Amino acid sequence: MYSSEQLLERIKVALLDVKIDGHPKELYEPIAYTFALGGKRIRPIMVLLACDMFGGEVEMAVNPAVAIEIFHNFTLLHDDIMDHAPIRRGKETVCKKWNANVAILSGDTMFDLAYKHLIRTNPKALINILEIFTQAAIEVCEGQQYDMNYETSKSITIPEYIEMIRLKTAVLIAASLKTGAVIAGAEKKDVQNIYMFGENVGLAFQLQDDLLDIYGDQNIFGKKIGGDIITNKKTYLYIKALQETKGTDLSDLIHYFSSTRFDPDEKVKAVTKIYDRLGVKESTVALINEYYDKALTYFSKLSVSNDKKFILKKYTDQLISRNC
Amino acid sequence: MYSSEQLLERIKVALLDVKIDGHPKELYEPIAYTFALGGKRIRPIMVLLACDMFGGEVEMAVNPAVAIEIFHNFTLLHDDIMDHAPIRRGKETVCKKWNANVAILSGDTMFDLAYKHLIRTNPKALINILEIFTQAAIEVCEGQQYDMNYETSKSITIPEYIEMIRLKTAVLIAASLKTGAVIAGAEKKDVQNIYMFGENVGLAFQLQDDLLDIYGDQNIFGKKIGGDIITNKKTYLYIKALQETKGTDLSDLIHYFSSTRFDPDEKVKAVTKIYDRLGVKESTVALINEYYDKALTYFSKLSVSNDKKFILKKYTDQLISRNC
Repeated sequence: MYSSEQLLERIKVALLDVKIDGHPKELYEPIAYTFALGGKRIRPIMVLLACDMFGGEVEMAVNPAVAIEIFHNFTLLHDDIMDHAPIRRGKETVCKKWNANVAILSGDTMFDLAYKHLIRTNPKALINILEIFTQAAIEVCEGQQYDMNYETSKSITIPEYIEMIRLKTAVLIAASLKTGAVIAGAEKKDVQNIYMFGENVGLAFQLQDDLLDIYGDQNIFGKKIGGDIITNKKTYLYIKALQETKGTDLSDLIHYFSSTRFDPDEKVKAVTKIYDRLGVKESTVALINEYYDKALTYFSKLSVSNDKKFILKKYTDQLISRNC
Repeated sequence: MYSSEQLLERIKVALLDVKIDGHPKELYEPIAYTFALGGKRIRPIMVLLACDMFGGEVEMAVNPAVAIEIFHNFTLLHDDIMDHAPIRRGKETVCKKWNANVAILSGDTMFDLAYKHLIRTNPKALINILEIFTQAAIEVCEGQQYDMNYETSKSITIPEYIEMIRLKTAVLIAASLKTGAVIAGAEKKDVQNIYMFGENVGLAFQLQDDLLDIYGDQNIFGKKIGGDIITNKKTYLYIKALQETKGTDLSDLIHYFSSTRFDPDEKVKAVTKIYDRLGVKESTVALINEYYDKALTYFSKLSVSNDKKFILKKYTDQLISRNC
């Protein structure tokens, strides 16, 4: 079996084979630029880890893994247009560096390229992985639409927020694992359980991303601390805080999240203080643990020996910051 | 065998089955709106005509035909954002009626839905039609990028323009016919020839669209006459005129195409007069005939009896306005 580090290297090599030197160059340069931005390649690694765990031939899963990574990057490209985001992974976004039209069309081309790679796999698994991918892709769009709706919505409930991140983030992680399992020829029950494992890992992962925005170490997290607060992003922490508070803290919170004109550092400091008073950090950690525990319940049902499970388990433990 | 009218009805029924009542409604309403705008459904009809001509089971081609129509509508949705187009088929475009973000994301979802339908076909043909579709989709994006590049480019040659419309328009018509042929299990040589037939029909079709913009009957054409001139669109007629003229006509032409501030009727009248003087109508008709004749050469090579060829031939004759 392969380590996640070895699989990351395999993905990096495979990404070099994606066609990014085509013509017109105005279309392909932004795609090359996007790939060069890097990333942790979590989803493709998960495809390969699942395939390997179920005793599949990893090489048969490399192209579908690349497909999912291309698709993920395509969604970031289009999301950045919709969010008017200037920075991604420390560099200018495609819509900022070029323009929105370039980002739309390069994104569309990446979506095509994703399918081009997806279909290069075990013919027996083809129809299944096409259905998994297409369903996940539709749900990711639905999640992004809910996210946009919530930007202008005054009140979002926690279940609504969880459903949004399930669609926008968790289903693609679940689909990655499921794809690897299907290519390996895993049994139906195992395929279902690894999907549910992935979905709950995905929820824990996104909630942790929300948490790290404020309580993370900037050097490890790789993003500016408090970015979600500065841009008024309604994360789990904000929704939970709104639900838990009243009086001055409530009106202050609503006030801070109504504009981007505040001094960033001051705003982050003030909102964090409110969160601290309400114990939002602790409730978020508790919910992350709840989802990850649920994930592990599904994981324990897989008909695979523990020594084969070890590498994937270690990988998700690290992802959810539990090195135990 | 079915008539093209019968196949159009079949397509209309199948389009009603596309999922457009999902949630969030902000995502699906623009998709439903786009389908309701109608259209001639040329591409899906061609899928079914080719399948029927090669003796295939038409029902096996219905979903891939719907897929290509959804994809075509997706490209229009995204093109309208890039072109800032306010009107499509006599109604407000999605980006105008809603906004650009809605059009981006609804379009992305349509692209997903296209694949969802594409894969519901004869499993034997699956990998082939996926490759045909994915390749065509990439080329359509490349064509759109060239089209955008040429908007700001001072000089475009006729070969460059032909290559642009080949990618943007002709390959999808070619891919439609090829898809139908592959589903029917046609022989390799026939599959290649029907693709080349479609590509040349597609070129003739686009050139005719350029021609009808000025020399068409508004009641039949369905668009305002002179729209391309008003919006400074560099069609074949414009490029040909630029190449053929000099002196005052040349400077007038460049002057007219440098702004949208002119009185529309006056501008269309003046440019049409220049085109008339240069015989641009006649050269365009000649080129349309050249491509359609080339198309028919490929068509004649198909190993199908003439009586089976009749319906598709009649359909493309009507499309290229040759009822002979």
